[in-house]
Amino acid sequence: MPQGALLFQATGYRHEIWTDHLRRLIPELDIRVAEEEAAPDDIAYCVAWRPKPGALKRYPNLKVVFSMGAGVDGIVADPTYPRHVPLSRVVDDTLSQGMTEYVVLHTLYWHRRMSDLASLQKLHKWRQIAAPRADSVRVGILGFGVLGQAAATALRALNYRLSGWSATPKHVEGVGTFHGESGLVPFLAEADILVCLLPLTPATRGILNAKTFAQLPKGAAVINCARGGHLIEEDLIAALDSGHLAGATLDVFQTEPLPEASPLWAHPKIVVTPHVAAMTDPASFMRHVADTIRRMDRGLPPENLVDFDRGY
Amino acid sequence: MPQGALLFQATGYRHEIWTDHLRRLIPELDIRVAEEEAAPDDIAYCVAWRPKPGALKRYPNLKVVFSMGAGVDGIVADPTYPRHVPLSRVVDDTLSQGMTEYVVLHTLYWHRRMSDLASLQKLHKWRQIAAPRADSVRVGILGFGVLGQAAATALRALNYRLSGWSATPKHVEGVGTFHGESGLVPFLAEADILVCLLPLTPATRGILNAKTFAQLPKGAAVINCARGGHLIEEDLIAALDSGHLAGATLDVFQTEPLPEASPLWAHPKIVVTPHVAAMTDPASFMRHVADTIRRMDRGLPPENLVDFDRGY
Repeated sequence: MPQGALLFQATGYRHEIWTDHLRRLIPELDIRVAEEEAAPDDIAYCVAWRPKPGALKRYPNLKVVFSMGAGVDGIVADPTYPRHVPLSRVVDDTLSQGMTEYVVLHTLYWHRRMSDLASLQKLHKWRQIAAPRADSVRVGILGFGVLGQAAATALRALNYRLSGWSATPKHVEGVGTFHGESGLVPFLAEADILVCLLPLTPATRGILNAKTFAQLPKGAAVINCARGGHLIEEDLIAALDSGHLAGATLDVFQTEPLPEASPLWAHPKIVVTPHVAAMTDPASFMRHVADTIRRMDRGLPPENLVDFDRGY
Repeated sequence: MPQGALLFQATGYRHEIWTDHLRRLIPELDIRVAEEEAAPDDIAYCVAWRPKPGALKRYPNLKVVFSMGAGVDGIVADPTYPRHVPLSRVVDDTLSQGMTEYVVLHTLYWHRRMSDLASLQKLHKWRQIAAPRADSVRVGILGFGVLGQAAATALRALNYRLSGWSATPKHVEGVGTFHGESGLVPFLAEADILVCLLPLTPATRGILNAKTFAQLPKGAAVINCARGGHLIEEDLIAALDSGHLAGATLDVFQTEPLPEASPLWAHPKIVVTPHVAAMTDPASFMRHVADTIRRMDRGLPPENLVDFDRGY
């Protein structure tokens, strides 16, 4: 029997979709939804989505926080977060699957020149555009953790040439891996399509900038499905307008929702999607939450914890 | 030493791209390009792309015809084709790879609601659209030969639920297979995304028609990358306009190039591409041609022959 209540703190979400799963999994769990309902002392578990800074320090008996998104940069950056409380990141097959689909879709989109073909369609113009074989297209994945490696596996099955860059060394069969600052330039020089799947940390903030773009081969495409903070939006527009980059797909933005007046919406070489690359699946996320609560009930530690020093 | 000359008969193609490969592979081969150059008696081999009806009956010493495209319906339908001359179809890894890429791209495109997301982008409107997990999306492949099975393998790797329909029974692991006229209705009932990769024969002409569309689940999408003759274009427009179908990707058309006045170009639920799904690769096609000529030189029969009664 879990000790203490769970607070579902995800402003703007229809909470029933999420909490109903958890109620089915642990019927005896006391679930509080609105913050008002919760006496701070009661709360032992918290499911959080972009909590306001300071929101999580109010609960003295908090034992674990579950982040509903894969990106935990907002919580990690909150100086008032009570760091003795473990922060559990969602590791969810659905999330990884959705991200892989998105990366494969947009890699094919730029490789197979869909943007140019769409422009021709608008003009009712028949002009055949040849695309190179996938085995001559080099896809570089920035951020080579669970999501990056899953995307790489799917892209390799389509014969793309893969490489991965990460902060620390990784070895993955059939993939050229690079790491650290010194590995970045050679990695970029070989990326016809650059996919960003990095965690957002002080070291990776703004990594998609003018200097990075200049190191990509001419005609490269960029796909950012990590965090808006990775990209200097003006630098991307300049690199597209100069003709150095061929196109970009963006799922994440400095400000979300992307303001109506943003020049990104109407740019002819940018595909904008509204942060839909990978959505956490309520059923599988809540299975992870329920499993973890049961584990902790048996005296075991929670899993998939964020390392606050590393930032992810 | 090959006996007789090879005629490269592909009006509108820049022949050097093709013939240079062959010259490198069989330097001693006598290659004729323009029809005018060729004394009919000299021609023993012919590489053909959409030959005019009657064009191939002029060469009394013809030993084999190589079709540059995977679709041989035009040649098979020519009543003057000299049927004692074997017709060799291109079976080319590049072709199959290109087709697989195209099918995966457009399956993901409709599954992940890219058409709706593109409309939202045009309106500068941020609205998150969720897509179901791939393992709940049923993709049905009409035509389950080399190309269909290659596409199915790639789609299964992305967790889609696959089924295949073919004229004759096929068994492929992990894929529900249907065949013949009686198998068509149950096959269609389970296809959220229908991919047409059939050969064009009298039996398959017009198979993508109002009746077929009505048997698909509501909200299905259709991808035709086989032949324009498979599709009744008006029936597709009606099924999209009624809301029964969600969208379609078309790479092939009744008339190619697609006339500027065709309503398909501007239809908001149709993606038009100019017959680019899979292009025959000059290098690998000519390797097949050279191998076959060498085989025949050694007295062996050519391979990958079209069965004229079957039509492919």
